[in-house]
Amino acid sequence: MDKLHLVKIGGNIIEQPAALSSFLRDFAELKGPKILVHGGGKEATGLANKLNIPVRMVDGRRITDKTNLELITMVYAGKLNKSLVAQLQAFSCDALGLSGTDANAYQAKKRAVGDIDYGYVGDLTVINTAFFKKILSQNISPICCAVSHDGQGQLLNINADTIAAGIAKALSSSYHVTLSYCFEKKGVLQDIEDEQSVIPKINLKKYQELKTKGIIAQGMLPKLQNCFEALDQGVQEIRIGGPELLSKKSYYTKIYK
Amino acid sequence: MDKLHLVKIGGNIIEQPAALSSFLRDFAELKGPKILVHGGGKEATGLANKLNIPVRMVDGRRITDKTNLELITMVYAGKLNKSLVAQLQAFSCDALGLSGTDANAYQAKKRAVGDIDYGYVGDLTVINTAFFKKILSQNISPICCAVSHDGQGQLLNINADTIAAGIAKALSSSYHVTLSYCFEKKGVLQDIEDEQSVIPKINLKKYQELKTKGIIAQGMLPKLQNCFEALDQGVQEIRIGGPELLSKKSYYTKIYK
Repeated sequence: MDKLHLVKIGGNIIEQPAALSSFLRDFAELKGPKILVHGGGKEATGLANKLNIPVRMVDGRRITDKTNLELITMVYAGKLNKSLVAQLQAFSCDALGLSGTDANAYQAKKRAVGDIDYGYVGDLTVINTAFFKKILSQNISPICCAVSHDGQGQLLNINADTIAAGIAKALSSSYHVTLSYCFEKKGVLQDIEDEQSVIPKINLKKYQELKTKGIIAQGMLPKLQNCFEALDQGVQEIRIGGPELLSKKSYYTKIYK
Repeated sequence: MDKLHLVKIGGNIIEQPAALSSFLRDFAELKGPKILVHGGGKEATGLANKLNIPVRMVDGRRITDKTNLELITMVYAGKLNKSLVAQLQAFSCDALGLSGTDANAYQAKKRAVGDIDYGYVGDLTVINTAFFKKILSQNISPICCAVSHDGQGQLLNINADTIAAGIAKALSSSYHVTLSYCFEKKGVLQDIEDEQSVIPKINLKKYQELKTKGIIAQGMLPKLQNCFEALDQGVQEIRIGGPELLSKKSYYTKIYK
């Protein structure tokens, strides 16, 4: 099977031009088929503040009313996505920006209202693997943002980590998939105060231990949960680390079964 | 040769939900390969006003500084493009939103500073016909917005009428191209005050006469200039009319040599 790199980059790195540029150069230099998924939450919050639009977050998820949906569509699918694609083109990486609605690349379903009404937040339902495979076979790299749709004309805000894991799973029967989560830390840390305390390897048993001890908490919990689900569903390799992870200059945490 | 519909829709129609929805339904129902190019100037100006960003227009062209470039990228490539694509998907038209930087679909060159410094405004240089043909052969309809790039990482604001004419010309050796400009009038009007005074046909000779008499003026001049250039360079059919033009329920002006 061909190797496929699926890389998710967090919003914090996107906001640091030098780190971002270096990351994009590394991404452009990856051999073979590759896909980038990006977030961009902070940037959207910044624009909301300028426009005096209230922002409400619950457990790290944005409560997405109509105005906030418009805002994230502008920031994720417009400003950030096109800027990333233009920079990659300059590095001779033929990139194609996508939201989930483009060629129906990844479709979602509006989350049912439970204790919390998240508004226009969706959960991933279908990945258009045929489209991804056709685009990848043309040496074009999809650059995916965290906006999807329900197929009925409604755009939906969707978690970027989940998109990355979802696409990785869907393509793992056609490619040997390495899924890399790049964020502002060098990996999963033993001690949140010590940037160098990267845990080299975590399997499900160790994850449970770390969770019990409270070493893994907050935003890292759904991220790792996504990872183990992805491994269960066929993704071959998973890494969590800093933006230098792609050129292997730095530590990272390997997640394995 | 296969027929190709290339349709440009103006910003005024995009802002009328009912007219837009009806237009998109007609577009979705067009048989065979089709491409949509859209503007969206008014919406960008609206956001600029909310953000207290100054907007300067010269001869209908936006002076595009860095802030205005970010703004149009958010509005054209984000909000409007994704909303159009999601609506088309709901009408069972498999649409793919594009800016010029995506798969390097249409590249531009920053306009040289002359009497006026337009800022980050570009003029079309290259159309990636191979990419368009591959996408069209997969029954996917490209939905193109008025944002391009210079290949060096710089996004550029580019006129939507020019993109439509440019793509039409580039594809006219592979398809029999019908280029339709849909805007808020029912066609080129004999009397600007009379909505029903649509001129049914205009050729180059008639265009010169109408220009001399001052019947064609302002924004219609570059639009018609684009049309005659496109005809000269191989585009087979050109129509200018209202949003109902695609379903042939209304008048339109046919432009011919």
